[in-house]
Amino acid sequence: MMNESHLTSLQNPKIKQVLHLRDRHARDQTNQFLIEGYREILRAVDAGWKIETLFTCQELFLGSNEPALIQRLTSRGTTHFTCAEKAFRKISYRDRPDGLLAIAPQRHVTLDDLKQQQKQKMPFYVVAEAIEKPGNLGTILRSSDAVGVSGLIVCDRCTDIYNPNVVRASVGTLFTVPTVEAKGEETLEWLKSQGILILAATPQATQEFTQVNLAQPVAIAVGTEQLGLSERWMQQADLQVRIPMKGVADSLNVAMATTLLLYEVLRQRQLTP
Amino acid sequence: MMNESHLTSLQNPKIKQVLHLRDRHARDQTNQFLIEGYREILRAVDAGWKIETLFTCQELFLGSNEPALIQRLTSRGTTHFTCAEKAFRKISYRDRPDGLLAIAPQRHVTLDDLKQQQKQKMPFYVVAEAIEKPGNLGTILRSSDAVGVSGLIVCDRCTDIYNPNVVRASVGTLFTVPTVEAKGEETLEWLKSQGILILAATPQATQEFTQVNLAQPVAIAVGTEQLGLSERWMQQADLQVRIPMKGVADSLNVAMATTLLLYEVLRQRQLTP
Repeated sequence: MMNESHLTSLQNPKIKQVLHLRDRHARDQTNQFLIEGYREILRAVDAGWKIETLFTCQELFLGSNEPALIQRLTSRGTTHFTCAEKAFRKISYRDRPDGLLAIAPQRHVTLDDLKQQQKQKMPFYVVAEAIEKPGNLGTILRSSDAVGVSGLIVCDRCTDIYNPNVVRASVGTLFTVPTVEAKGEETLEWLKSQGILILAATPQATQEFTQVNLAQPVAIAVGTEQLGLSERWMQQADLQVRIPMKGVADSLNVAMATTLLLYEVLRQRQLTP
Repeated sequence: MMNESHLTSLQNPKIKQVLHLRDRHARDQTNQFLIEGYREILRAVDAGWKIETLFTCQELFLGSNEPALIQRLTSRGTTHFTCAEKAFRKISYRDRPDGLLAIAPQRHVTLDDLKQQQKQKMPFYVVAEAIEKPGNLGTILRSSDAVGVSGLIVCDRCTDIYNPNVVRASVGTLFTVPTVEAKGEETLEWLKSQGILILAATPQATQEFTQVNLAQPVAIAVGTEQLGLSERWMQQADLQVRIPMKGVADSLNVAMATTLLLYEVLRQRQLTP
């Protein structure tokens, strides 16, 4: 008897579908994306994301909870394919695959959705303008989750949030941090209309980031790795701050800088309950 | 006339020497390492590091200051090879090479050296135990430079500090932050003998990192990506602190966590001049 849900050939159209989704154009067209890894898929399911297709390779499992997750997914209608190890290694984008990879539909949250979902006493947003490296965007998501932001707004995107390396670097926090892709102009208007303070970090600022009052509704705006925030954001920012640099280098990595700013907001808000 | 200092063949022994140095074993044996990039090589030279050999490819230069740097190096005895673009791309480990790559001798700073060089009123060290990813070690160097630590101590190394990806992620701060490779045990003794407070971050701690006094001689100790600090360090630490985690993820990336702790030391010390 032939098991049609077991994939061995690298030429199988399902394998090709997965490889295809590494490409941004294919993601945009199909509105699908890839989630790899036990932890990442679990976080997606726990957060109520739909998983369309699951690919597994038992030989690569690292723990003993995988069958329970597979059962949970297939009982909700996920199509399941088991893979020969060679086939799974072909679709995996990790150095050390753990035998689980999924296809899921993208979600598109709008600024309106974000406003309605916002339940914090004091709104707290991150605006990431034109970040280029997926690893940086993923790390910004991870820090955004850690401090409990109301949402992340990706402006004038260079990297789409469904890039496999964003999903990976976010360790699945992409599924819980409300994330919007929007144009810079509409984002600025949206923030201003709600009276949310816009904070920009720049080496030219006179005040340090620990010296301004962040215990108020705030959006932390950060820009590209090479050039920082655009002129538009710098001019519209209500507050400019700098991060002290005592050494030879003139800037921190953008994900580092963002993390520092986010935790400073948290620290100040804890002091003023 | 044949120009012997122009490399075109990918089989040239000089090309092979460079490729060889990507390998840790070769670096350990020859006591050499690679520095790629204009900014990185400039920071090394500015900080007084010796450059033995320089490879350049004019077609790839991004600016106009390269000839001055080449002149500065060759006038001090650096051997200079120009390369055909194909040959240079072969030795480059960057996606977008900028046409400059150097071989330099490694330096080995000891804990004794570190103690003698220490001129700060209040010593401030980072201990990085068994960090695996070169990118993380490089980023920790970058943050260490930014806050002006007295030194970075790499304990029980997994990644050597002369790994090309450490050099790259450090954006050349490897050349200015005093960096020592040492055993965990001797490092602990060395810190204790000087009365330097050892601070360890762990999710199990009751106090948050912003709630303890860091305006004193301190060493921030951080451990591997997977397991955190070893039992030895956890037990010997004078203070345990946690970084608040409000979301679904249970930890930050190690370089993020380190950056937060380092800047908290800086913030507190600025408050108590």
